[in-house]
Amino acid sequence: MRASNYLLATIKETPADAEVISHRLMLRAGLIRKLASGLYTWLPLGLRVLQKVTAIVRDEMNASGAMEVSMPVVQPAELWQESARWSTMGPELARFKDRHDRDFCLGPTHEEVITDLVRNEFSSYKQLPANLYQIQTKFRDERRPRFGVMRAREFIMKDAYSFHIDDASLQQTYEQMHACYCRIFDRLGLDYRAVIADSGNIGGSTSHEFHVLADSGEDQIVFSSESDYAANIELAAASLPAPDESAEIKAASEVDTGTCATIEEVAKELEQPSATIIKTLLVHAADDEGKPSDEMIALVLRGDQQLNETKASKLPGVATPIRFAGEDTIETLLGCTPGCLGPVKLPLKVYADHSAVVLRNFVCGANKQGFHLRNANWSDDCHYDEAVDIRTVQEGDPSPDGRGVLALKRGIEVGHIFQLGRKYSEALGASVLDENGRAVTMTMGCYGIGVTRIVAACIEQNHDPRGIIWPNNIAPFQLVIVQIDGHKSEQVREFSESIYAALQADGCEVLLDDRDKKTSPGVKFAESELLGIPHRLVISARGLADGSVEYTARRDGQKQSLPAEQALEFLAKTL
Amino acid sequence: MRASNYLLATIKETPADAEVISHRLMLRAGLIRKLASGLYTWLPLGLRVLQKVTAIVRDEMNASGAMEVSMPVVQPAELWQESARWSTMGPELARFKDRHDRDFCLGPTHEEVITDLVRNEFSSYKQLPANLYQIQTKFRDERRPRFGVMRAREFIMKDAYSFHIDDASLQQTYEQMHACYCRIFDRLGLDYRAVIADSGNIGGSTSHEFHVLADSGEDQIVFSSESDYAANIELAAASLPAPDESAEIKAASEVDTGTCATIEEVAKELEQPSATIIKTLLVHAADDEGKPSDEMIALVLRGDQQLNETKASKLPGVATPIRFAGEDTIETLLGCTPGCLGPVKLPLKVYADHSAVVLRNFVCGANKQGFHLRNANWSDDCHYDEAVDIRTVQEGDPSPDGRGVLALKRGIEVGHIFQLGRKYSEALGASVLDENGRAVTMTMGCYGIGVTRIVAACIEQNHDPRGIIWPNNIAPFQLVIVQIDGHKSEQVREFSESIYAALQADGCEVLLDDRDKKTSPGVKFAESELLGIPHRLVISARGLADGSVEYTARRDGQKQSLPAEQALEFLAKTL
Repeated sequence: MRASNYLLATIKETPADAEVISHRLMLRAGLIRKLASGLYTWLPLGLRVLQKVTAIVRDEMNASGAMEVSMPVVQPAELWQESARWSTMGPELARFKDRHDRDFCLGPTHEEVITDLVRNEFSSYKQLPANLYQIQTKFRDERRPRFGVMRAREFIMKDAYSFHIDDASLQQTYEQMHACYCRIFDRLGLDYRAVIADSGNIGGSTSHEFHVLADSGEDQIVFSSESDYAANIELAAASLPAPDESAEIKAASEVDTGTCATIEEVAKELEQPSATIIKTLLVHAADDEGKPSDEMIALVLRGDQQLNETKASKLPGVATPIRFAGEDTIETLLGCTPGCLGPVKLPLKVYADHSAVVLRNFVCGANKQGFHLRNANWSDDCHYDEAVDIRTVQEGDPSPDGRGVLALKRGIEVGHIFQLGRKYSEALGASVLDENGRAVTMTMGCYGIGVTRIVAACIEQNHDPRGIIWPNNIAPFQLVIVQIDGHKSEQVREFSESIYAALQADGCEVLLDDRDKKTSPGVKFAESELLGIPHRLVISARGLADGSVEYTARRDGQKQSLPAEQALEFLAKTL
Repeated sequence: MRASNYLLATIKETPADAEVISHRLMLRAGLIRKLASGLYTWLPLGLRVLQKVTAIVRDEMNASGAMEVSMPVVQPAELWQESARWSTMGPELARFKDRHDRDFCLGPTHEEVITDLVRNEFSSYKQLPANLYQIQTKFRDERRPRFGVMRAREFIMKDAYSFHIDDASLQQTYEQMHACYCRIFDRLGLDYRAVIADSGNIGGSTSHEFHVLADSGEDQIVFSSESDYAANIELAAASLPAPDESAEIKAASEVDTGTCATIEEVAKELEQPSATIIKTLLVHAADDEGKPSDEMIALVLRGDQQLNETKASKLPGVATPIRFAGEDTIETLLGCTPGCLGPVKLPLKVYADHSAVVLRNFVCGANKQGFHLRNANWSDDCHYDEAVDIRTVQEGDPSPDGRGVLALKRGIEVGHIFQLGRKYSEALGASVLDENGRAVTMTMGCYGIGVTRIVAACIEQNHDPRGIIWPNNIAPFQLVIVQIDGHKSEQVREFSESIYAALQADGCEVLLDDRDKKTSPGVKFAESELLGIPHRLVISARGLADGSVEYTARRDGQKQSLPAEQALEFLAKTL
């Protein structure tokens, strides 16, 4: 490609609303442009990258035996009513009425459509297992789209759905998809981790997320220092603490803590570490329909620990998502502010975290305005109904598998595999006949990759102050030839053209920067770095006078002088 | 691909709502499935064809120098308000409100979005010309979706938009696109014609349609028997008839035609050919906003000719689209029924078709209930304001270029190229600075190909009673190997596998029909023909005993016995 005929839409200024580096670089390098909130146009250079990502995903999915299909973006409400998601999905599901006043939505995902297809097409266990996938546009009306294509409203997803006669078959395909995803992210050149994950509201049980490691990641993931254990922090289990039975049980006493409202304030006032103080939170219980009721449930944690809402929302009786009690509610119920709450004669169901349960002689709120208990003990003063794991693990905690300690990193979720089970197949009545001619509801897996998001995640992981550094396999071009002042030197032009022609003939993707009159060498250099093309060859009259050209690898930035006549041979080996 | 692991979703019954052969065959061969009215899922076999069509379109667009981008499906209302199409587009434009109550639509086309992009990115004539395209999902809420993917609501279109400093540059790119489209349809293996077309409500002037010739086509296209002239019948100009000045002007007389209401009835009653009778139609004039007013305009044609509404809707003062006067209106205005109308003392503006204007001694309605005039003449009895071309050309008419006569064929529109002009760039203020630093509004071209529709159009043109006959370049597989009773013969299995492996290694796309226990040879044969795979190799124990295999080309159906050991060599030459 000749730069003179190509839309290189680089910009110098960083748009004000771009918060993360990938968003800034995608705008500055001219990969994308914003059309409206969460809606982006992919420009030619960006689309080249996106198409390479897509090709690798497709190639590995096909190699795994999955079959590609393409389902509509627009979906009829009827199927979503069958699965009940028409009512359970919030405003994230974009809905509209067609000209005949029928309800439709824009697909945020395709479980309903694929299950409908399969219930009509499959009738026998002999047709199973089957894994169907598509690479397709989705729309989710995010409340707050941000970070460019990282959290856009319209995006491209690879979504696969597998169908099975039994759990063993599902497990087998699930493992194949796990391996397939590893091959995909390996080929994409990403530093990633597969972690145990929460299956969220998609339903089902077993699930793994694939995270690209990057400091800017929205998710926290944890790893063991010594084993393979890796999990999303939402799900990472806290290991059981050993009870300290050496401390002698003391007698509790009320202490005046005045206006102290937080654990930190109480710790300072009483000169005790926050790990010896107990934190009590009230949340709404669920009514019969699972919605928040007027009843409250208490959650108790050690003062230095954080509540893990994902874990807490799975406790029996707790409304999901977690809804904390308001100050007024607490005042009415217990006559004190939230800062003075404690598991002391509390007329509520109390769940206590394991790390709180092993404490002795602790401090906790006295359920009396301005007072705490010192040297409180579960045996004498306090009460809980059930010891549970509701805290977020911390760096240095023992790994739940008993090997090593946990380290924390930030990650960007780019893939997610689930064992969905029978949630959709049951709702939509998708069954096949088994060997004995009996109807069996199929069990399902589903497997997503955020195709557009990968491009942004890759940049978060691969950039420096000068711009993007593409991994070879998804770079928009392998090589950029910067010809210096070609309009002044026929020799420069001819040599550049000869290298360009030879490499193009070999199938190499080359950008020849021939914008000589319009663009200074300095701008060409800066843009070649901003665009992140892995290899650069500089051809100048001065160099050619010495019989040399200059090669630079984008990643290490080391310049290297090459004999001009050996340039092609060198590039053939290097690219 | 092994048929045993592949979703071959063939069906025997023809679904009741499939009216055209391509729709029936696409369902029967398992290329598509209906999700809802005008919404289709592409199954694996159909998607393979679609992806081949897409690849050819992309390849030729890139070779033409166009740059691929990808714009969102969801578009903000603001841009459509700028172009005024938010109000002029009817219910075909699917609209919805997002969670923040902002208006959006699903893109039926992308003129607004691309013009918005270009007005922001381009500032100088030096960046022109530029041709940007995408291959992307569109949604048009058709009143009556039908014929499967031929007239679906959601479909894939290749839409390109070019931007120019002047008309000469637009003309050049337009011609390049014309040539590019010819290469695309040649490579797709289609019998097609490029015809002069009406540019419709997209705006602009010059336009060509590309039609796949097929008896089932919705459009009529006309060709000259001796020149290159080809046009959509909507647009085909009628040549000027030579006036017959030999006939002596007679005196008109009123004749009682009773209840005759049609030209045919009058012709029969008066025993005169309909070519000597004049037909008068009343249509609504346009008000200041172009909408139908209460005023009427008369359109006069020769009785054996048909009104061409596309031509008539372009007449000054006529409301678009054409709206005919109701019987009540005519009764009130002239005191007679529509069958008795004539250009006799008609208190209206009268447009007369050239073929009516040259008549002498004709019959026409007398504007008096139950009466016509016989031997009416323009010189004495009738009146028109302007002679115009408002008739639809007929088979055998002289070609408008003066060479040969016109033939009619039916076509399916699969491509359309327009010179859009400045309609969108003016509305959205898309200008660049010219050589003298003056702002110049860009002129635009736009170029569409109905990618999903091509698959259906191809089948309309390529089928026989046994099924589809794919052109080589877009066949889902090049070869199907039918192994007969492989479960009973190791030799059959081994030989089939060896051919399969050798061809796969050569990059040939082969379907190995190994569904031995489940599927009888008869079903395999029938399905191989229904699927339309161009080449078939049958491997049977009986054949191998003689050292032979059987080859059949799908198109001619001729069976050919080959020495088994020469099969690979033969296929290498043939595929």
